[in-house]
Amino acid sequence: MTKKLIAKPLIKKIYADLKNEISTNAWNPHLVIILIGEDPAAKYYVENLQKKGMKKGFKVSTKLFDPAISQEQLLNEIEVLNTDSNVHGIMLQKPLPKHLDESEIVMAINPDKDVDGFHPLNMGNLVLDRDGFVPCTPNAVLQILDFYEIETEGKHIVIIGRSDIVGKPLANLLLRKNKTGNATVTVCHSRTKDLPKHTKEADIVIAAIGKAEFVKADMLKESAIVIDVGVNQVEDPEKGYKYVGDVEFEASFEKVKAITPVPGGVGSVTTAMLLSNVLKAFKKCVSS
Amino acid sequence: MTKKLIAKPLIKKIYADLKNEISTNAWNPHLVIILIGEDPAAKYYVENLQKKGMKKGFKVSTKLFDPAISQEQLLNEIEVLNTDSNVHGIMLQKPLPKHLDESEIVMAINPDKDVDGFHPLNMGNLVLDRDGFVPCTPNAVLQILDFYEIETEGKHIVIIGRSDIVGKPLANLLLRKNKTGNATVTVCHSRTKDLPKHTKEADIVIAAIGKAEFVKADMLKESAIVIDVGVNQVEDPEKGYKYVGDVEFEASFEKVKAITPVPGGVGSVTTAMLLSNVLKAFKKCVSS
Repeated sequence: MTKKLIAKPLIKKIYADLKNEISTNAWNPHLVIILIGEDPAAKYYVENLQKKGMKKGFKVSTKLFDPAISQEQLLNEIEVLNTDSNVHGIMLQKPLPKHLDESEIVMAINPDKDVDGFHPLNMGNLVLDRDGFVPCTPNAVLQILDFYEIETEGKHIVIIGRSDIVGKPLANLLLRKNKTGNATVTVCHSRTKDLPKHTKEADIVIAAIGKAEFVKADMLKESAIVIDVGVNQVEDPEKGYKYVGDVEFEASFEKVKAITPVPGGVGSVTTAMLLSNVLKAFKKCVSS
Repeated sequence: MTKKLIAKPLIKKIYADLKNEISTNAWNPHLVIILIGEDPAAKYYVENLQKKGMKKGFKVSTKLFDPAISQEQLLNEIEVLNTDSNVHGIMLQKPLPKHLDESEIVMAINPDKDVDGFHPLNMGNLVLDRDGFVPCTPNAVLQILDFYEIETEGKHIVIIGRSDIVGKPLANLLLRKNKTGNATVTVCHSRTKDLPKHTKEADIVIAAIGKAEFVKADMLKESAIVIDVGVNQVEDPEKGYKYVGDVEFEASFEKVKAITPVPGGVGSVTTAMLLSNVLKAFKKCVSS
C-alpha cells in the first residue's frame, strides 16, 4: 500500500466533485464566515478559504466585527444570518475575544447551517448516527481512511487526545456500524498512564494532541498506520518557522506501514470538508 | 474495599435526598409516561415506577395509547405534553409498535423534558460536557463508581457494548474532565477481535452487551473492578426463570477486586436516576 498518505489526490477528487455538482445544477451555495477582529492568522485563513471556495462555485462572504462587539449584538447578527434564506452555512472563525461566551454563540447558530458541526444537536446526531453535520477534522480523517482503503472494522484504533472538535467526535464516528467504523476504539489523553503501552498495541494511531512531534517512532508498532492530525508551528533555522505534526515523522515513516505527512495530510482536507458541509447545507435548504 | 458493590445503600441515599428536597420545598414534580399497548413487562415496570415515585413525592401519570395509534397522533400528543407547564418530564416506554418511527418521536420530545436523555441535543450536551439530561443507565454506573469511591482518573476502563443508550454515552462520560471521568477508555463490541486481550488489561470492565454471563472470570484480571450492566432473563429449574448479568458472577466474584451483582446492582439504580432527572427537569422549569 501507499506509505505516505498524502491528501492531494483525495482533495483533488473532492473539489472536482463539488465543482461539478454545483455547476451542473447552477447552484449558489453561500457560506458566511463570522470574523471578529483582525487576528492575522485567522484573516489569512479566511482569505484563503474565500479564494478556494469561489473557484469551486461557492459564494463565501465575511462578516467582520469589531472585537468590542457585545454578546447580545453578536447573537442578534447570528439570528439575522439564521433566518436569511440566501445564507446556507455559518462558520464562526476563532479565536473569539475573551468577553464572549463561545458556548452560547455556538448554541445560537441554526443547526441546519452549522457547517462547523460544533452545535450540540449535531454532536448528538453524530453519536446517534443520525443525519447532521460532522466536524471537519474528524471527517477529514475518515475521508483519508476511506480514500486509501484502510479497513477499520475490527481494528484497534488508539486516539490520542479527547478534544470536543477532534478526539471525542472521532471516537464516536469510528464506533459507527459502517465502512469507516466498526473499530475497537481507545481514547488516550493527558491523564493516561503509560501511553506507549496503548499506542504500541494499536493497528491505527490517530494523534490529535497539538504537541509537536510528541509521538515517537518507538511508541508505534511496525504494522501500524498513523494519522497525524496535529499542525504545530516550530522554529526552523532556515525559514524561521515550519509546521510539524504530533508525530515524529522521519523515524516513524521509516518504521510504520503508512503515515500521513504534515503539512499535506489531514489538515489539507479540512477545508474541503467545510465546503462539502456548505453544499450539504445548501441542499438541505433547497429540499426543505 | 467492599467486594460486592450492591446498589441498596446508594439508592437509599438518593431517594432520601430526593424526598427531602421535594417535601422541604413543597414541590410537585410531574412525570408522564407514554405507554403504548399492554406489554406485560412494560406495564409492570410502569406501575412499579409509579408506586416508587409517589412515595418520594413525585406525581407519575401514565398516558396509555392504543397500539394502533398513528405517528401523527402520537406526535400531536407529545406536543400537548411539551407545552403543558404542569408536566416536567416525559418518558417514552418501550417497546413501541413497529409502525412508529422511534427516532422521530424521540426528536419530538422537548429536550428540557427529555428525562430519558435520549434526544440528540442531550446526547450532544453530554459529549460536550454541557448541562443536560444524562441517560439513566450510564448515570447509574457513574453513581456506583462515585458512591464506592472507585477512582477513574488514569484508569483503563474497557466498555463492552456500543449501544446508543449505554456504551456510547458511558464512554463519553468517562472521558470528561471530572471526578468520575479522566479515564483511558476502550470501547469493544461484536466486531472486536480478541476481546479477552482487551478485558484482561482493564482496571475497570463495564459489561453492557445484553448476553447472559458472556464475560467469564478468565477474561478479567484479579485487580479488576467489574460493573455489570446486563439484566438477562434465563431459565431456572426451581423458579422458572431468574435474572443474571452479562458477567459470570460466582467465579468472577471469587477472582476480582469488586463486582456489582445482578439483580441488586446497576439496574436497581436506574429508576432513581430517572426520578432524579424528573426533579432536575422540574427545577429547570421553575427557574426559567
